[in-house]
Amino acid sequence: MSERKLGRGVAVVGAGMSSFGAFPGRSTRDLFVDAFLEMRESVDRGLDPSDIEALYIGNYSSDLFEGQGHTAPIMADWVGLAPRPATRIEDACASSGVGFREGVIAVASGLYDVVLVGGIEKMSDLPTERVTDTLATAGDAIYEIPAGFTFPGFYAAMATAYMDRYGATSDTFMHVGIKNHENGALNPKAQYGSRIADIMESKKARAADRGRPVPDWDDELAFLQDERSNPSIAWPMRLFDCSPISDGAAALLLVADDIADRYTSRPLRVLGTGQASDVALHDRETLTSIRAARVAADQAFTMAGIDRQDVDVAEVHDCFTIAEVIATEDLGFFPAGEGWKAAEDGLTARDGSRPINTSGGLKSKGHPVGASGAGQVVEIWKQLRGEAGDRQVPGARVGLTHNVGGTGQTAVVHIFERADA
Amino acid sequence: MSERKLGRGVAVVGAGMSSFGAFPGRSTRDLFVDAFLEMRESVDRGLDPSDIEALYIGNYSSDLFEGQGHTAPIMADWVGLAPRPATRIEDACASSGVGFREGVIAVASGLYDVVLVGGIEKMSDLPTERVTDTLATAGDAIYEIPAGFTFPGFYAAMATAYMDRYGATSDTFMHVGIKNHENGALNPKAQYGSRIADIMESKKARAADRGRPVPDWDDELAFLQDERSNPSIAWPMRLFDCSPISDGAAALLLVADDIADRYTSRPLRVLGTGQASDVALHDRETLTSIRAARVAADQAFTMAGIDRQDVDVAEVHDCFTIAEVIATEDLGFFPAGEGWKAAEDGLTARDGSRPINTSGGLKSKGHPVGASGAGQVVEIWKQLRGEAGDRQVPGARVGLTHNVGGTGQTAVVHIFERADA
Repeated sequence: MSERKLGRGVAVVGAGMSSFGAFPGRSTRDLFVDAFLEMRESVDRGLDPSDIEALYIGNYSSDLFEGQGHTAPIMADWVGLAPRPATRIEDACASSGVGFREGVIAVASGLYDVVLVGGIEKMSDLPTERVTDTLATAGDAIYEIPAGFTFPGFYAAMATAYMDRYGATSDTFMHVGIKNHENGALNPKAQYGSRIADIMESKKARAADRGRPVPDWDDELAFLQDERSNPSIAWPMRLFDCSPISDGAAALLLVADDIADRYTSRPLRVLGTGQASDVALHDRETLTSIRAARVAADQAFTMAGIDRQDVDVAEVHDCFTIAEVIATEDLGFFPAGEGWKAAEDGLTARDGSRPINTSGGLKSKGHPVGASGAGQVVEIWKQLRGEAGDRQVPGARVGLTHNVGGTGQTAVVHIFERADA
Repeated sequence: MSERKLGRGVAVVGAGMSSFGAFPGRSTRDLFVDAFLEMRESVDRGLDPSDIEALYIGNYSSDLFEGQGHTAPIMADWVGLAPRPATRIEDACASSGVGFREGVIAVASGLYDVVLVGGIEKMSDLPTERVTDTLATAGDAIYEIPAGFTFPGFYAAMATAYMDRYGATSDTFMHVGIKNHENGALNPKAQYGSRIADIMESKKARAADRGRPVPDWDDELAFLQDERSNPSIAWPMRLFDCSPISDGAAALLLVADDIADRYTSRPLRVLGTGQASDVALHDRETLTSIRAARVAADQAFTMAGIDRQDVDVAEVHDCFTIAEVIATEDLGFFPAGEGWKAAEDGLTARDGSRPINTSGGLKSKGHPVGASGAGQVVEIWKQLRGEAGDRQVPGARVGLTHNVGGTGQTAVVHIFERADA
């Protein structure tokens, strides 16, 4: 396999997202319109929608969540793009990360100069147990699901293997959650945008209000260690280790590098893209690392021609807190077995040496699965353009997104650079 | 929108398919392996599977049909491709036609030199009414499905509008079915590979065997006009106007033009590709034509730089017989309102001036929806290489595929040319 390179350069010139959350009565159509309109507003020099030549839409399963298949042309219609081609991309929770890659490839091919990439998912209409069953279909329906695995179980297996091999504890994962809620509290689009400390204090206040005994939690860690406030879902993954059930959408405008200045003087250049697949979890050699993510990261960094330490800010796939720890190792930010210490030591905090998930991540921002990959790019767009508000990482110039499908049967990595004219 | 062209040329150098039919106990994994192995055998100078750099898999809904989401990496694993990137493309019944286009785009982008495109669907595990409901999700789940529409009804509405506007009768559609079964009888992979005349004779013989009155059908048309042998499904669409419920898979090997001779001296060059979307049927200006197909065809012919009369053989999307009639007009083979006469006059027969669906089409060959578009390319591969056996169109050099999703919210057209070294 030769080294991969694109036929021509690609830039991001617009980005927007809906709020992430649970929105009864709103469909993916409504949410995608929200994202599209915010994307359109974000284009510095304005966007005539008729410039858009194609739509790629990442979606895990509107089939199962909404009873709506063939969703790509509906999204195109809802933002006025018919008869432009509209294609749905599905790779489980990596659907819109891969959709973004397909948009990059399509522009690089020369077929299109201007492509819209979207991500959508509407999960909250189903009862929780049916959401869990629906997500489980991203495992292996012959070898894993009949054995009783659902996603908390998959990631719990990875977490226990990781703890056993490297010495992490369940406290490690709580540090990840605390950090991501700290970030999400600064993100107005986040589904659970409260600091854990604030959740704790509000629970204490409520107990006091009701004349009940006020729990004696000293700090957030104590709060999360308490089974009453943070029950086990699949040990060692507890409630606050799991991303929520979410509705949401995101939209990104991709153009050929050489026309980016029609739209903005401050595009994001796509420096690198990587994607890989893997066998299902039951068939892997290790549970403590995701090979597809390592392969995808290597491809993206090779294409970008930069080192790991050049990355200023990264959005990684923290569907469960253990996933973030493993991601930071698979990306080469920390050596294998060291990611958990980095998390405990605060290196991945917004003011640490390696800021991870400044958006709040999937954990706090929300995880509308087909929209999550595109949502990551929205955060990198804001960070690299200096528009991330109170959660801004000062001077960020290079950003990375890491989006995983299933238990790692798919991984896709992108690297971006601010490219001021 | 500028005229579309690809950054570099793309060729098909291998093609294979499973049998189409109902195969209890076999999953899409098994069927895709069948298709992959036949594809591999078809590569004249041999294929080392490690040459394959990526997989695109068209699939409508393994989610709903098999309870298996995230199916692309499983297909990659099943043919030994992990960790190569694997991406599912979904546009309803056009999923693998669009998947093929994504493969073309990916090679044209320069990112890959060798790409595998597959199409898969396993429909026969569900009871018929659930298949119908699952397919209905390719309509509009807000505006159409709650009104009671299913796909026979959608296409029946198009058929009655067409009859009213242009003077076709239900007999017209029967001619299409008779012709496609004539072709399918020569295709060993076809699900219903019997001539209508043979079906009629066997019914007569069975009646005689059982001592019952032998029906006095003079010919196939009389047989199809008889409500007992050909009941109405959604008037004027009768049983023999509808494609069957099918399982099947197809696989295609795409490479950059400039390396095609590593694999064969007789590749198929992709001359043109076109894709378009449209609003759902309830929102259209006309029911007698599919705009997305017209737009996609115009794109493909413009890119190919050839005329309609240059096409020697075409596989079009005959999910219902009316769909074939409309397709031949949308593609510009016949003027609007004239396609039905062409069908009645035998112009679309194998030995007519415009051979359509020499494979038997979806009607006779079968319609495993996510595999159908890729299956069309397999037929064109055989025809242009002179390997179509008894159904060969002599001297065919240029072929076309026309694949429709839903009621025409998606259409994708490809044009191929035999390119002997």
